[in-house]
Amino acid sequence: MTGVITRATPVPSPGLPGRVRIYEVGPRDGLQNEQGVIPVEVKEEFVRRLLAAGLPVVEATSFVHPRWVPQLADAAELMGRLGDDGRDCPVLVPNERGLDRALELGLRHVAVFASATETFAAKNLNRTLETQLEMFAPTVERALAAGMDVRAYVSMCFGDPWEGPVAPEQVVEVGQRLLAMGATELSLGDTIGVGTAGHVTALVEAFTAAGTDVDRLALHFHDTYGQALSNVQAGLRAGVTTYDASAGGLGGCPYAQSATGNLATEDLVWLLDGLGIDHGVDLEALVATSAWMAQQLGRPSPSAVVRALAQSTS
Amino acid sequence: MTGVITRATPVPSPGLPGRVRIYEVGPRDGLQNEQGVIPVEVKEEFVRRLLAAGLPVVEATSFVHPRWVPQLADAAELMGRLGDDGRDCPVLVPNERGLDRALELGLRHVAVFASATETFAAKNLNRTLETQLEMFAPTVERALAAGMDVRAYVSMCFGDPWEGPVAPEQVVEVGQRLLAMGATELSLGDTIGVGTAGHVTALVEAFTAAGTDVDRLALHFHDTYGQALSNVQAGLRAGVTTYDASAGGLGGCPYAQSATGNLATEDLVWLLDGLGIDHGVDLEALVATSAWMAQQLGRPSPSAVVRALAQSTS
Repeated sequence: MTGVITRATPVPSPGLPGRVRIYEVGPRDGLQNEQGVIPVEVKEEFVRRLLAAGLPVVEATSFVHPRWVPQLADAAELMGRLGDDGRDCPVLVPNERGLDRALELGLRHVAVFASATETFAAKNLNRTLETQLEMFAPTVERALAAGMDVRAYVSMCFGDPWEGPVAPEQVVEVGQRLLAMGATELSLGDTIGVGTAGHVTALVEAFTAAGTDVDRLALHFHDTYGQALSNVQAGLRAGVTTYDASAGGLGGCPYAQSATGNLATEDLVWLLDGLGIDHGVDLEALVATSAWMAQQLGRPSPSAVVRALAQSTS
Repeated sequence: MTGVITRATPVPSPGLPGRVRIYEVGPRDGLQNEQGVIPVEVKEEFVRRLLAAGLPVVEATSFVHPRWVPQLADAAELMGRLGDDGRDCPVLVPNERGLDRALELGLRHVAVFASATETFAAKNLNRTLETQLEMFAPTVERALAAGMDVRAYVSMCFGDPWEGPVAPEQVVEVGQRLLAMGATELSLGDTIGVGTAGHVTALVEAFTAAGTDVDRLALHFHDTYGQALSNVQAGLRAGVTTYDASAGGLGGCPYAQSATGNLATEDLVWLLDGLGIDHGVDLEALVATSAWMAQQLGRPSPSAVVRALAQSTS
C-alpha cells in the first residue's frame, strides 16, 4: 500500500565505537544445522555473494568429521572451488586433522570451538574443560607456526541447558587460557540465547578487569529469547567492536531443542546504520542474497529486515 | 533433548529504573488487525487471563466505528461482559461518540490516537496535524471532567512510510500540544518499526529538553526491523518507565505492508528479568495465555520467548 523504508535513519549515540567488524558465520554456523543436503554449488554462490556484499569476514565451513556434521562433508570441495577468493575465509578446525586439511589448501585463518562448561565440553567434545584445552594446544601452536590467525569460540558463555547460569569468572578462566595459548581472538557465544544486556556488560567487564584487551573479544548471540540485538547494544556500550552474525538469521543449535537462529546479519546492519556506525556492508545486496538463500532452502528467512525488505530488493 | 531455561538470570545494569510498568495492548492493538472474526468469549478470556497474569494495565478494545475496524465491533459487549473486572482497562476512543460509550459503561481510562505526521493524520483520520488536535480537544476535556485518565498515542514518531524520517522536534510539538490539552500520558509510537536506539535516546531527550517530565512518556515499539527490544533498552537508559507491549507479539499495522507485530510482552519480560527490573508479571501464566491465544488464531506466536517456552508451560 505504501513505500517500504529501506534504510535506517542515522542518529548516533555518544560513546559507541565508530566502526564495527561483522564476522559472518552463515555458511558454517547457519548451514551446519540444515536437515537437507545443500549442493556445493549453492554454498559456493552463497559465500561469493556474501563477500561481494562487502562482508569483511565470511567463515566458510568446518573441517569436522562428516560423521558428526554430514552437512559440511563437502568442506574441502567448497574451499577448492572458492580457490584464491576463499583464501581469507576462516574455517573451523576441531583438531589437528582438520588443521592439516586447512594447511593443505593454503588457508590463512582457522577457528577452534571450546566450551565454557563441563557438561557441554563432555557432550560436544567428549572432553573435560581441562582436556579440551589440551586437545586444542597443538592445533593452535601449529597453526600459529604456519602463520595463521586462530579464533577461539567459547560456547555456553551465559547459560547452559544442563548447568543453568554460567558465571562470568568461569568464562574468563577458559577464555584467558585460550588467549595464553596464542588464540588471536575470542568469540564469546550465547549458544542458547538466554543472556540479557546486563549479563553482557558484566561478562565483558570481567574480561577487561582480568587484563584482556577488549579488541580481542567478539560477541556471538542467538535470538532464542529475542535478546540478540539488545545484547549487541550492550556489547557496543562496553566497547566490543566485532560481532558474529548469520545472513538471514540462518542456524540453530542442535543441542538445545528451543534454540533458534543466530542473530541475523541484516538486523545487525539496521542497528549499526541507525547508530551511524560504519560496517562496510551493502544491505541491499545482503538482503537479496538471503532472500535467494531462503528460496534455496524452501522456507522464509527468520530475519525481520529480510522479511521487510525482500520484496523491494529481490 | 535437554531442559529449557525458563527464566532469565538477573544481572542488573547500573543506572536503569528499578521498576517498569508494562502497558498491555494485545487485545486492542493486537486483535484489531486480525482478519478473521474472534468470538467475544475468546476476547473476554484473553483479557481476564492477562489481568490474572499480573499485567498492571490491559487496554481492552476500541470504540471506533465498526466500518473502520470491524474486528472491534463487539467493544461494548466485551466491556459489558468484563463488568467491574474491566473497569480499569483503558479503551481507545477516536472521538466524542466513542467517549460517550465509555462513559455509559462507567470506564475510567480512555486513550486517543494522534499522528506525528501530516500524511498519516490525513490517511488515518482524514485530518491535518492541526485539525486532529481540534478534534481531540473536546474529547479530552470531557473525559478529564468526568474524572478519567486520558492517554494520548502519537503514531509515526520515528518514520512514516510516506514522509520518511520524522524529526524529534515535530513529535515534541504534537506531543506537548496533547499534554497541554490535559493528556495524562503520551505513548510515543514507532508505528512502522524503523527506529533504532540512538533515535530513541534523541527523541526522549528532545522531550525532556522541552520541559516534559520523563514519567509522562511511554514508548511503543514494533518489531518490523527487529529493533523493538534494543529500542526498549535505549528507553530504559533514558529513564522511561512505561512500555507498551502485546502478548505473544500479536498485531501489525494495516497501513504499511511490511509492518510486523508489536513488541512481544514475553520478550520484554525476559529483558526486564535479566536486568533485575521489577514488573509484576507472571511469565509462565503469560506464556500459557499467548500459547492458548495462538491456538485460537490457528498460527504460531511470533514471540521468541513464547516459541521457546510454550512447550514447558502449556
